[in-house]
Amino acid sequence: MSSTFNELIQFIRAEVNQGLQKLQIPEIPSYLYDPIRYTLEGKGKRFRPILVYLSSRANHADPESCMKIALAVELLHNFTLIHDDIMDNDHTRHGQATIHNKWDISTAILAGDGIYAISQILLNRLPDRVDAICHYFNEATLEVCEGQAMDKEFENDLSINENQYLKMIEKKTGSLLGACAALPAILVGSSQDTVKQFNQFGRSLGIGFQIHDDLLEIFGSEDEMGKSLGSDIEEGKQTIMVIKARNKYSKEWGDIISVSKKDKTIDKIQEFFITTGIEAETKLLAQSYFKSAQETLDEIVSIDRNELRQFINIVENRAY
Amino acid sequence: MSSTFNELIQFIRAEVNQGLQKLQIPEIPSYLYDPIRYTLEGKGKRFRPILVYLSSRANHADPESCMKIALAVELLHNFTLIHDDIMDNDHTRHGQATIHNKWDISTAILAGDGIYAISQILLNRLPDRVDAICHYFNEATLEVCEGQAMDKEFENDLSINENQYLKMIEKKTGSLLGACAALPAILVGSSQDTVKQFNQFGRSLGIGFQIHDDLLEIFGSEDEMGKSLGSDIEEGKQTIMVIKARNKYSKEWGDIISVSKKDKTIDKIQEFFITTGIEAETKLLAQSYFKSAQETLDEIVSIDRNELRQFINIVENRAY
Repeated sequence: MSSTFNELIQFIRAEVNQGLQKLQIPEIPSYLYDPIRYTLEGKGKRFRPILVYLSSRANHADPESCMKIALAVELLHNFTLIHDDIMDNDHTRHGQATIHNKWDISTAILAGDGIYAISQILLNRLPDRVDAICHYFNEATLEVCEGQAMDKEFENDLSINENQYLKMIEKKTGSLLGACAALPAILVGSSQDTVKQFNQFGRSLGIGFQIHDDLLEIFGSEDEMGKSLGSDIEEGKQTIMVIKARNKYSKEWGDIISVSKKDKTIDKIQEFFITTGIEAETKLLAQSYFKSAQETLDEIVSIDRNELRQFINIVENRAY
Repeated sequence: MSSTFNELIQFIRAEVNQGLQKLQIPEIPSYLYDPIRYTLEGKGKRFRPILVYLSSRANHADPESCMKIALAVELLHNFTLIHDDIMDNDHTRHGQATIHNKWDISTAILAGDGIYAISQILLNRLPDRVDAICHYFNEATLEVCEGQAMDKEFENDLSINENQYLKMIEKKTGSLLGACAALPAILVGSSQDTVKQFNQFGRSLGIGFQIHDDLLEIFGSEDEMGKSLGSDIEEGKQTIMVIKARNKYSKEWGDIISVSKKDKTIDKIQEFFITTGIEAETKLLAQSYFKSAQETLDEIVSIDRNELRQFINIVENRAY
């Protein structure tokens, strides 16, 4: 990755953060707007709006409209995180207390609802193609809800297989990244086929992103991740590695997770995934999705695909 | 009210219920769609979509588009009810268990989110003026969120006065009824002034509706209301009558509510509100809003206002 591209990403992130600050969230009622402001000041990675921005550049879309879409997508993402954190009872996010933890569940429900409404209002103010853009955005939102529903259904269900898991993360993570890539193409009036290709590119990238996330959850750095490793396993969440372990090394995996919390060290879990080859297999699976994203991208005609190519690399190599 | 008009209302309600059934909510994931289907089969009064429908007739708007808006508004209303019921810990709604009661809080949060997304998708499919309609709809949604935030802020706050309460119910109830009345005017391309008048008419109707609701909560029939009377007072909720009692009959009201739950009979509360004249005053206040709705309606030129006039009567005289 060139240092110039790195600077571009930093520039976009700063633009997005500035755009979020400029939304002029009202002061009152503070019950609604204080937690919304708190959320938008948080340290998100802004991967989704960055993808919108890069896809906009590839499509030569109007920068001002593209920024509205980028912000709407980031707001939508934050709305789903706030509600997911209640459902999963997560206490911290990006190193700061979640809303239902800092305030309470009612406050968090309403803050999520409000952010979603604001994201819609932003999109409704686009100068053109509001119907197509909003329809695509809301179909993606409903798919994210479906993904979250599957995630909840899968909790502690030991029969879930790899395909079911991949379908779930496609909906929960892939659909929104697909929309991020596709919306700028819709904005410039691309053909349905091109829009589908952009969606497929973002979707594959999103699935790779999530599998990579599962790896980081076990093999990442606690400092860089801002949370303790292995917490998903402790909470009975499905991950691709857990499913592989359960299916192929049922007895050994049972021994690993049945010990007391104190003895279930991350070192032992890491060693297990490495010696069984599950870590290597999972890395290959993630790579296959990044490769697929790359190939789909290469099929799209008459766009500047260089930056999106470099973005795949960033996602593939991220350490947090 | 003429029996013909009564038949029209019944016809519209049946149309709305049929429209809700025809939405073809998917079967899976059942975690998301079972509670949504359960909600849409519930026995709502459908006042809001009926108002959309009547305003559409007054505006000679396209019936098919009007039905989409009517359904979207009813979905939006249900989304807010589902989330409000969690926040207020209400266990029944229209005589059936609330979602977080029948399932759990996570299920209810996600069902609300999903219904809101579906309402957006419906509107995004309108053949015309999607930007203006959606913008208005989402501004109203954010105002409903603000109203709910104020309602939560006001809980157990003994300093709240009548004006603050009226502002809160204007946002929580008035804004959506205002949108119901105004959206068909936007659909047919009315002037901004006309749209504002329709909004003001619906808003006044909504405030009257809510004050009437506070009266029914104390003086209604438990059978017709489908819940026990006086529960708002028990939960520390503000109502216009409670605020009047606190401000004008501080000591006497203190005596009424400080007794044990067993002795705090609805008979004693009713007698207090009647002998102090608070019931009569509150009725007059509600009437003033219905009158104001009527007057605003009469100012709107070149529409068929007869049915909307009769609708005010229905709202004013409803017993549940």
